[in-house]
Amino acid sequence: MKIRVGVVGVSGYAGLELITLLLKHPAMELAAAMDAEEIGEKPLQEIHPRLRGICELSTFPVNADRFAALDLDTIFLCTPDKVSYKLVPQILSSGIRAVDFSGAFRLKDATEYPSWYGFDHAIPDLLKTAVYGLPEWNAKAIASARLIANPGCYPTSVILALLPLIQAGMLETGSNIICDSKSGVTGAGRGVKADLMFSEVAESFRPYSPLTHRHAPEMCQEIGWEVSNFTFIPHLLPIRRGIISTMYVNFQRQISSAEIEAEYGKRYANRPFVRLLGSSRLPELRAVNYSNCCDIAWRLTDSGRKGVIFSAIDNLVKGASGQAIQNFNIMHGLDESTGLL
Amino acid sequence: MKIRVGVVGVSGYAGLELITLLLKHPAMELAAAMDAEEIGEKPLQEIHPRLRGICELSTFPVNADRFAALDLDTIFLCTPDKVSYKLVPQILSSGIRAVDFSGAFRLKDATEYPSWYGFDHAIPDLLKTAVYGLPEWNAKAIASARLIANPGCYPTSVILALLPLIQAGMLETGSNIICDSKSGVTGAGRGVKADLMFSEVAESFRPYSPLTHRHAPEMCQEIGWEVSNFTFIPHLLPIRRGIISTMYVNFQRQISSAEIEAEYGKRYANRPFVRLLGSSRLPELRAVNYSNCCDIAWRLTDSGRKGVIFSAIDNLVKGASGQAIQNFNIMHGLDESTGLL
Amino acid sequence: MKIRVGVVGVSGYAGLELITLLLKHPAMELAAAMDAEEIGEKPLQEIHPRLRGICELSTFPVNADRFAALDLDTIFLCTPDKVSYKLVPQILSSGIRAVDFSGAFRLKDATEYPSWYGFDHAIPDLLKTAVYGLPEWNAKAIASARLIANPGCYPTSVILALLPLIQAGMLETGSNIICDSKSGVTGAGRGVKADLMFSEVAESFRPYSPLTHRHAPEMCQEIGWEVSNFTFIPHLLPIRRGIISTMYVNFQRQISSAEIEAEYGKRYANRPFVRLLGSSRLPELRAVNYSNCCDIAWRLTDSGRKGVIFSAIDNLVKGASGQAIQNFNIMHGLDESTGLL
Amino acid sequence: MKIRVGVVGVSGYAGLELITLLLKHPAMELAAAMDAEEIGEKPLQEIHPRLRGICELSTFPVNADRFAALDLDTIFLCTPDKVSYKLVPQILSSGIRAVDFSGAFRLKDATEYPSWYGFDHAIPDLLKTAVYGLPEWNAKAIASARLIANPGCYPTSVILALLPLIQAGMLETGSNIICDSKSGVTGAGRGVKADLMFSEVAESFRPYSPLTHRHAPEMCQEIGWEVSNFTFIPHLLPIRRGIISTMYVNFQRQISSAEIEAEYGKRYANRPFVRLLGSSRLPELRAVNYSNCCDIAWRLTDSGRKGVIFSAIDNLVKGASGQAIQNFNIMHGLDESTGLL
Repeated sequence: MKIRVGVVGVSGYAGLELITLLLKHPAMELAAAMDAEEIGEKPLQEIHPRLRGICELSTFPVNADRFAALDLDTIFLCTPDKVSYKLVPQILSSGIRAVDFSGAFRLKDATEYPSWYGFDHAIPDLLKTAVYGLPEWNAKAIASARLIANPGCYPTSVILALLPLIQAGMLETGSNIICDSKSGVTGAGRGVKADLMFSEVAESFRPYSPLTHRHAPEMCQEIGWEVSNFTFIPHLLPIRRGIISTMYVNFQRQISSAEIEAEYGKRYANRPFVRLLGSSRLPELRAVNYSNCCDIAWRLTDSGRKGVIFSAIDNLVKGASGQAIQNFNIMHGLDESTGLL
Repeated sequence: MKIRVGVVGVSGYAGLELITLLLKHPAMELAAAMDAEEIGEKPLQEIHPRLRGICELSTFPVNADRFAALDLDTIFLCTPDKVSYKLVPQILSSGIRAVDFSGAFRLKDATEYPSWYGFDHAIPDLLKTAVYGLPEWNAKAIASARLIANPGCYPTSVILALLPLIQAGMLETGSNIICDSKSGVTGAGRGVKADLMFSEVAESFRPYSPLTHRHAPEMCQEIGWEVSNFTFIPHLLPIRRGIISTMYVNFQRQISSAEIEAEYGKRYANRPFVRLLGSSRLPELRAVNYSNCCDIAWRLTDSGRKGVIFSAIDNLVKGASGQAIQNFNIMHGLDESTGLL
Repeated sequence: MKIRVGVVGVSGYAGLELITLLLKHPAMELAAAMDAEEIGEKPLQEIHPRLRGICELSTFPVNADRFAALDLDTIFLCTPDKVSYKLVPQILSSGIRAVDFSGAFRLKDATEYPSWYGFDHAIPDLLKTAVYGLPEWNAKAIASARLIANPGCYPTSVILALLPLIQAGMLETGSNIICDSKSGVTGAGRGVKADLMFSEVAESFRPYSPLTHRHAPEMCQEIGWEVSNFTFIPHLLPIRRGIISTMYVNFQRQISSAEIEAEYGKRYANRPFVRLLGSSRLPELRAVNYSNCCDIAWRLTDSGRKGVIFSAIDNLVKGASGQAIQNFNIMHGLDESTGLL
Repeated sequence: MKIRVGVVGVSGYAGLELITLLLKHPAMELAAAMDAEEIGEKPLQEIHPRLRGICELSTFPVNADRFAALDLDTIFLCTPDKVSYKLVPQILSSGIRAVDFSGAFRLKDATEYPSWYGFDHAIPDLLKTAVYGLPEWNAKAIASARLIANPGCYPTSVILALLPLIQAGMLETGSNIICDSKSGVTGAGRGVKADLMFSEVAESFRPYSPLTHRHAPEMCQEIGWEVSNFTFIPHLLPIRRGIISTMYVNFQRQISSAEIEAEYGKRYANRPFVRLLGSSRLPELRAVNYSNCCDIAWRLTDSGRKGVIFSAIDNLVKGASGQAIQNFNIMHGLDESTGLL
């Protein structure tokens, strides 16, 4: 007896990745594939040729009135911020749990939405009840959540690497943290944009949205750091998948690599998807892509007063759909790695 | 005293390549950069960041009334078929020579335009006077032309390879010619299309427009072959530049590699841009990209009754802008390789 | 109670892909990871960083004396031809079944080995008993096989597309078949070679081994066609994975697309991994990569007397490791798609 | 009457780029192409298929005894550190000027060689007379130099961006400078290495040599900064060409973007190859690749107390061969951009 779930926003890359994972999951049944109205009813395999012969479902336009009748346990929203903002209350009031991939419920402070997301957030209560779905840190709250704010891809790579050090009081109070991140192009979604055309991106590389990317406040909120002391510069890699974040930190005192290893080890012992590479190995995207793993490595400088932390994830798996499944597993009392290994 | 030229359609990839070559050409002066009206006046270096600090010109909307006043010797049209179709008569009647990159004047038979190009061609006289600008074959006519129909990129790669064999009577009359071509993405232009987004093309590969590509009748016209005996299948390579065409032919009789070499050698002796690799080497895109060269190699099968011919060019140079400059050089009595080596 | 299997040649790309699939397979247990002597004992996760935290096994040097003691049901050989040639008899005589990825047991005629594979084949009896492991065609023989010659990647893409038409008598007897194939670089293995360095392959494209590739006799043997009427030209794509074969055939008589569809449909009904795209869709690598599927499409020319057949596979999955698992499933009475969907 | 020059180390990527530029240079004649002994006499066009039909020269083994007889003005050394270390004294004593691409004469302090370069440097006098060939800063010394230490690719991207700010006293004394650099693969040379194989690099990304890259002391020497306050982390991009360095600095006091712009503008006014993008634009590799340009942009944070500086170059042109030509031009009283625009 599988758990019936629905997906809204099936036509994008996160939607495809989620469906691919759902179809292999032993406890989930993809019962409803929904999309924005303009697509109408369309076989999933026409939208995603990968799914030919594998999934016979057709999309139908999302319709709040029908939510209750769909008999779903959970709906995953792979939708833009404003669409999620509108749909999530309807889903919850239909008695269905929601795992939202957008940023609409990630920030706790509603007053941050106008400047970072461009819209007024009028349901601050939902911001309070939403659980930030980073399983390595919030498993207990996730287990009983009705609304999961699934973390952004950059934040996943950054928080997993920095939070253990910060919670252990290792980073110098008030010092600056620098995150130099590099992401594959699927992180930008499947929207048709001139600057994401193949001939503009291929054989090139560039920074974008320096200091202004909306993932910055999300990271700062979760690691408990001032945005003004946090420098986040994302770059666009000429590949489809994967994020490497290179983070530069100042320690409160002289730190040894063994102390760092011990701290990470303590936090991530028994967590199946965080892999500690230590101070002699280095991450690379080919080791994490197509998996739900996050690889973390580090180097110390300046006699242990400064550090460089590296982390690598697949933006579509641990940075989106794999993490959503991991959250779902926890919400349903399953082993968190079910369907993900 | 340089020759003043203009370019219409500066915002695309062929436009950029042409401008880059023009700026290095010892005898040409880029005097006017024009584009479709919607762009308006805009510095070229904003459209193409490569040109920062190198070209101070701004585009202005193309305007037939101004052509005469621009004091130009030649206008290069890097424009869509229908735009060229409309502009070329105006350019010529202003006393300016035209080198047209589109297909609007490549086919001799006006009745082919509705089916292959989707519009009625009402100026068949211009089709007669237009010279097909393949310098290795039509240098004499090019020298005195007022209107050059600059060849398509696929046709350049195919005609240069096949025409010597056909003119020598080597190919079996009525037999089928197969062209399996592979092109980089810039060949599709700079238009914003969903199926040319980075994440759709990268790490993938696919055929497209099989048997229906509009370059097929152009090739057949130039090599003198029936379209019904000509199978052209283009494929999209996940790189920016370059075309390799693999052509399968049947010989009229048993042929030796030495005969083929002799025939090519005779045709292309002293032609600076055709390089014969023979029957032991093979072309590769990295050897021709960013150059105006066409590399040709071959293999014989079936005791010399069948052959495989390979050719490689850079679609933006020999397949477009380099060839246009080569045509310009011949039109002005310059060495055909001026500014191209 | 899982079936214990071993792998020889774990350090290459097919080995990694096989291990990745094995680890997810519900009925298989990877009990022994072996490699050539020079590697010695080494954790698999050092050879393949993808396997960190997922597989704790270490390789050990392959040793024929130990085969019997390993208590294995099947050994997969991801080894070069000559290594497989030497090991397979030892494996079989230890009472273990063998699935060999090399070409050492694919050709039925031992006299072909010196010219195509460069060594004398002195165990023709094994060539007779070896079953060519293409499950869509040889499922019955596979079920009881002790030695599977797992098909080559190019042959898989070609045979699946051509054999239905040939067995139906549709292709003109004695006519020429042309296979223009394009493969990602992992098809060449993980050996360190100058012409497979990143900077030689990236942003380029080239044919290689024209008319001389050792997969040609394998294809001809399986489709029952004369090598002299078979033109096989492989090309190297600047991507990691995937093969598209574009095949040009002559029909015995005028054929309709519906007849082709009917024939393919008949042959591949209920075969989970062959997907028929028909005469209006086209394959692309992104639809088959990371899956065990083979996509087939076609177009007719010359009033149905000629045809173009397209097929696409992932060379590492359907072209190697996925197919090996599919064979294993059939050998053990499992559903052939077990662990592959 | 062209100036006769020679090149040692023609078989690598910098060698090819240099030859390509030399052949287009109006004042230089490539008179001798030399390589390590193992290559022997070999046509350049066999080593580099790009040069077919363009350069008829053959390499010959470098031989110090022949230097004097070659009648050369300058020899460019595209050779490994130790080879340059051995050859440069022989070249100079033959009365020939040397432009060395290696690190053998870049560091002023001979005692740094054992740890960073792995060999003892016994000719400290040459380190003193060698001129660091960064034309935007050392033009006067370059003009009369006999030995140019051509800068490394990473250092070029970093020094051009940081030195103006440092010389203006803008950076906080003793503060840490972070350089997060990303380079295409040709920066690693043409040596055959397992971790630079196509299938290892493509569709991936990774940091390498963190804190231990030998370009770090070179940068610190030129910008006058303590190595212990300088954090340099290079990363490997899955493309062939180009470097983007993202640098994080602390200002001595609150700085405005206009002040930065003024300072850069003052230093680089009339320098043809440095392009200032300011605080609203961003660099990208496609804008600098295949050119000798360095693009610089910046952003301020923390009310102007911190800054992010971006720079982009083509590692093979401004980071190697183009810069060498620029140095040559200055050494010969030519306009520094001769042959480079």
